[in-house]
Amino acid sequence: MLGIEAARVIIAEALKAGAGMKPLSVVVLDAGGHVIAFERSDGASPGRFDIARAKAYGAVMLGMGGKAQMARAESQAYFMAALSSVYEGKILPVPGGVLVRDGDGGILGAVGVTGDTSDNDAEAALAGIAAAGFRGEA
Amino acid sequence: MLGIEAARVIIAEALKAGAGMKPLSVVVLDAGGHVIAFERSDGASPGRFDIARAKAYGAVMLGMGGKAQMARAESQAYFMAALSSVYEGKILPVPGGVLVRDGDGGILGAVGVTGDTSDNDAEAALAGIAAAGFRGEA
Amino acid sequence: MLGIEAARVIIAEALKAGAGMKPLSVVVLDAGGHVIAFERSDGASPGRFDIARAKAYGAVMLGMGGKAQMARAESQAYFMAALSSVYEGKILPVPGGVLVRDGDGGILGAVGVTGDTSDNDAEAALAGIAAAGFRGEA
Amino acid sequence: MLGIEAARVIIAEALKAGAGMKPLSVVVLDAGGHVIAFERSDGASPGRFDIARAKAYGAVMLGMGGKAQMARAESQAYFMAALSSVYEGKILPVPGGVLVRDGDGGILGAVGVTGDTSDNDAEAALAGIAAAGFRGEA
Repeated sequence: MLGIEAARVIIAEALKAGAGMKPLSVVVLDAGGHVIAFERSDGASPGRFDIARAKAYGAVMLGMGGKAQMARAESQAYFMAALSSVYEGKILPVPGGVLVRDGDGGILGAVGVTGDTSDNDAEAALAGIAAAGFRGEA
Repeated sequence: MLGIEAARVIIAEALKAGAGMKPLSVVVLDAGGHVIAFERSDGASPGRFDIARAKAYGAVMLGMGGKAQMARAESQAYFMAALSSVYEGKILPVPGGVLVRDGDGGILGAVGVTGDTSDNDAEAALAGIAAAGFRGEA
Repeated sequence: MLGIEAARVIIAEALKAGAGMKPLSVVVLDAGGHVIAFERSDGASPGRFDIARAKAYGAVMLGMGGKAQMARAESQAYFMAALSSVYEGKILPVPGGVLVRDGDGGILGAVGVTGDTSDNDAEAALAGIAAAGFRGEA
Repeated sequence: MLGIEAARVIIAEALKAGAGMKPLSVVVLDAGGHVIAFERSDGASPGRFDIARAKAYGAVMLGMGGKAQMARAESQAYFMAALSSVYEGKILPVPGGVLVRDGDGGILGAVGVTGDTSDNDAEAALAGIAAAGFRGEA
């Protein structure tokens, strides 16, 4: 189950994995795309919550990690642009939005990390998800 | 007439046609672009309603199937981007939005399918529309 | 589990329970407030989807049935008005939004019914939920 | 300074103070109304983030705790209704939105708590703020 205990582990471990990176912000969403927990490191810019949530929200709503979303955006830009409007601007198709799957592959939610490069953001999210005993799909 | 009975046939037959595809979601809209019926298959991501509706809504509002919309998006991206805003983000110009026409060519509504490739989505929609005795325009 | 099979039972039985009422529309949402299935009876006004969804969405997001929401709206009108804006106009605090609970009381989603009086709407929703083997909280 | 360390103390202590209450959700916002940290207890309804944030956001933006906002809503409902629209629906004028002040009275941010009665929510927020060494204004 992806509850508050697991969310705390994911955030703490993602921040630890990102210790050498720029200040990270990390959100954990449930399987419906709703916020369970969030932390913004000191020194991060104030708007980081919206970025973190959008990365994770798109992953949940589409059932696709940020890397797959980015590939689609690069091959069919107008599609992801229109999709952004369909979801009222609440998605962000880049790495750092990572699906959280259980052992059977079921989607439990998603993690969104922002602050460093998108690829580093995704690495930090994966580290947090693994530490909590789940499988991440970046 | 495209009422609830026909909508049920369309959805059931579209899902049947998509039995070998990824889990599909299917919406049927009336001639005003308003929802008559919708079903989301188990295993589909939670945000599928919005995608299905946007495909069908654009078809009704523009009187163009998703393939014609996509051609326009590819030849004149800024036009479809602006149109997306004109319709408050409620359109999605890709295959899978299929017009429902009667024998005289009148538009009765549209079907929106999402879950597999856009082309497969359109095939499932066409199968459902044909099974209900209407003509589909993908 | 509240999946498409259960949702079909809920909608069919709610419509059956409402056979003597005005034409009903019925939506079933999952535990994250996302649409699983919807049907609008012939003769219902075109905007019924939004009403049905708003009744059910508020129930899920607040964890309160429509009757409890209405009581709060009547005792503290400005609170529910502000809450409506917090949820971007997507809630509707009247009977007809009914929580779907499992045997342990966990919330699986919600049903929204609209078309007749709010109390009759709630009765139809409860009949559908009971027929699917769940507990309804109106 | 109200940074992530203090926000963690506030959330942990607010949740501890609310141990005998319904499952609480707690947000901490900075002096610009932006999210520093949030936690939703297991068992809380999914939409709690928006409520918690709105309580705290209104406090920061207006420089008034939730109790003062509620008094204004009760004496001049149309004013708070219009203000809700002015702030795009992101405020909620009830107790549980609590200003965080430093020793000189300067506003450092706000805490939003939701889940139990509004008065209990405010008590939990005050306990968290006091534990972090700040002055709360409910």
